Amino acid sequence: MQDYDIVVVGAGILGISSAYHLKANNPDKTVLVVEMLGDVGQGNTGRSNAMFRNMFTSKENRELADSAIDFYSHIQHDLKRDVGVDKIGYLWLMSEKQLSASERHLRRMENSGVEVRRMGESELKSRIPGIETNQDSDEARVMSLEDVTAGLFGPKCGRLAPDRLASFYRDGFVAKGGVMLFNRRVARLLIRPRESTGFDGEPFVWQESGVSGVGLADGETIGAGTVVVACGAWNNELLDPIGIDGHAKAKKRQLFAVPVGTDASLKELLFARGFNESGTLPFLILPKSGLFVKPVKESNEFWVGCEDEFNRPFISYPEHDLEKYPAEPKYYEYNLHQVLREYLPQFERSRPDRMWGGLYSYNTLDNMPYVFGHEGLIVVGGDSGSGVMKGDSLGRIVDAFYRGGEGSEVTLYGGRPFKTSKLGFRRRDVEREDWIL
Amino acid sequence: MQDYDIVVVGAGILGISSAYHLKANNPDKTVLVVEMLGDVGQGNTGRSNAMFRNMFTSKENRELADSAIDFYSHIQHDLKRDVGVDKIGYLWLMSEKQLSASERHLRRMENSGVEVRRMGESELKSRIPGIETNQDSDEARVMSLEDVTAGLFGPKCGRLAPDRLASFYRDGFVAKGGVMLFNRRVARLLIRPRESTGFDGEPFVWQESGVSGVGLADGETIGAGTVVVACGAWNNELLDPIGIDGHAKAKKRQLFAVPVGTDASLKELLFARGFNESGTLPFLILPKSGLFVKPVKESNEFWVGCEDEFNRPFISYPEHDLEKYPAEPKYYEYNLHQVLREYLPQFERSRPDRMWGGLYSYNTLDNMPYVFGHEGLIVVGGDSGSGVMKGDSLGRIVDAFYRGGEGSEVTLYGGRPFKTSKLGFRRRDVEREDWIL
Repeated sequence: MQDYDIVVVGAGILGISSAYHLKANNPDKTVLVVEMLGDVGQGNTGRSNAMFRNMFTSKENRELADSAIDFYSHIQHDLKRDVGVDKIGYLWLMSEKQLSASERHLRRMENSGVEVRRMGESELKSRIPGIETNQDSDEARVMSLEDVTAGLFGPKCGRLAPDRLASFYRDGFVAKGGVMLFNRRVARLLIRPRESTGFDGEPFVWQESGVSGVGLADGETIGAGTVVVACGAWNNELLDPIGIDGHAKAKKRQLFAVPVGTDASLKELLFARGFNESGTLPFLILPKSGLFVKPVKESNEFWVGCEDEFNRPFISYPEHDLEKYPAEPKYYEYNLHQVLREYLPQFERSRPDRMWGGLYSYNTLDNMPYVFGHEGLIVVGGDSGSGVMKGDSLGRIVDAFYRGGEGSEVTLYGGRPFKTSKLGFRRRDVEREDWIL
Repeated sequence: MQDYDIVVVGAGILGISSAYHLKANNPDKTVLVVEMLGDVGQGNTGRSNAMFRNMFTSKENRELADSAIDFYSHIQHDLKRDVGVDKIGYLWLMSEKQLSASERHLRRMENSGVEVRRMGESELKSRIPGIETNQDSDEARVMSLEDVTAGLFGPKCGRLAPDRLASFYRDGFVAKGGVMLFNRRVARLLIRPRESTGFDGEPFVWQESGVSGVGLADGETIGAGTVVVACGAWNNELLDPIGIDGHAKAKKRQLFAVPVGTDASLKELLFARGFNESGTLPFLILPKSGLFVKPVKESNEFWVGCEDEFNRPFISYPEHDLEKYPAEPKYYEYNLHQVLREYLPQFERSRPDRMWGGLYSYNTLDNMPYVFGHEGLIVVGGDSGSGVMKGDSLGRIVDAFYRGGEGSEVTLYGGRPFKTSKLGFRRRDVEREDWIL
């Protein structure tokens, strides 16, 4: 196959956003995106919870997310392309203990200008139909559920449609002359010395060497001046063999779609008033195990999920077929539903009618994404489940890295300057994120 | 099998040093060490290069290494147990470019009281028999070898015998009542909720849960109040399944033993004068690819090795049998020897007569070791090839973590205070190490 100046591996949100910005800013370069699935955003991007927030303690996380969200709003409102941006807000329900443990982080956010509205128990009761703030049943005691005494509402948070967002980038990329190669999987990175000696066994340890292209699973190879690895959960598969640490591991995440049907109490909850212009419940985070409830009014359902940490395995080399990571009905039944029905009794008889699994790619060191490189190689990832909401910013950083290297500066959407070296590992300089779902 | 208060998994230097200090400071606790091999220090500890140094840019690295080295000297000189401590020194040979790039780090070390002697080219030539500082041959040009213009000599660096050191800890541990279980492999960590409900499927996501013991490969289980995971390159195998990031990956490292035999020029090099009390060449690091030469006078040989980074694969889940990671004769022939003979022509006709491989466990984020925990669990590792030289300090930190948790303070040997939280991941606070071999 022909060579390209740039080959981007992976057409999830990080890959396709990178490809878009690379082609836009380097119009004379040939750019190819190779994707193992049949279109953009069909892997973990399309399976994601698709929420965004500006509530982060880390300055860099706020910058990355703020800029990307502004750009997504710009796509939707100025460019008139519907990518599903809907600022329904996030509402953290908290126990007294949690609130007091969070105060420090909360103040950091407030002092940085993040809009957060505090709500008391009575306000929560009046706004969230049927909520049970008082946890004194036997079941609640067994699960150590705590009373809800406060809510933290972030009005600038919301949801979007990641598949439509990925399609926006795809169309722009192709319109500018970028090439997409679907249903082909990159199996390995090709390497070569900067200056070949012609001897067998290259590269030798005394040679400077770098990445020179990709090898596909079917045996074909594609040469590239620069390869951008944006494979999310699968980054290690390409990077470990060439001795580069991918700094992330995957974890299965599950979503359970619970139909509202004609249940009046669920419907009332779905369309809870007074939070947002959509006239729906905000994205709700319960005060136990990161359990969350997302209202999806267009399909008349809730999505329920949870961020389990301990005892949810890390996966260094995930399988390519995401069907190997299905949602587990018992996980809903014995884990999520038990907690959910205590705080929101209208879910008592509810069961999911659809469910799916996907993979988050965690950089557990500081819970922050990375962009770093080697000769002929740029790697983006480690977004720890927040790739969609930072995708545009990370794509711009990949492009800046391509043009100017690790020390370059990029202007994120909205004019925010950002140093690419901050997300690298040589001079990494990011505030650790402490506001985890 | 019976339960223990503490089960330490792995009897490499980190495991056995931890067990020793745990038993010494918690004499009433029952402590078991489980090791897959037949004795202590028989895995990567015994295969290591067994060098130690006090030349680090990271304050924490200096504290850890200084204290451990002082303790090893104390064992040898005061306790009269020969653990092979021999301060032969490290000598970095540098090109002008390397020296100038290193000046900043070098000054940091000097300002911190690290003894470093700078040597000029003529001094190097007079002290290192046969050294070729001038690299202008065709071969040198092909390999981009640079002239040696300076040497940095660290007299407080040296070598020791890691198997004897591990045996010292083993004997002390057993004398205090500790129990060793050899030739048994821990295959998994057992987990349980803090408070059981009696229902099937525990632990549920709404339960606080932790590690409660170990499962052996043969199916037996051992209960434990606390499990210390000190498996080095194999940490991920136990940690990933329970969703805990081991923050390290393994890489193969190789050592090639080149016999001196009756070769006069090699002998002269081995016994180079004026560097140390042993009357040998110091540990020599060449200005290319981290290639090093270690004099081993008692066996009349040199050990040659190299720290290859790019294109040396990372291994997330190494095989248990280290024979699967053999040294590669061609690696010596076409990589190391090519460089070695240019700087030290007396190696021209030399070939190794023994060679072996082993695994380093790298924490590539800051190149610093870690000690962190979860309920019922303490993990130590990520030493990135410097476990032997910091083993005593890390063992003391594991014990302090056991007694006082992550926030506790420990007194390292020699009275140096150290906060255990510095090496954890919640409040990690270590200077990144910039002085890599």
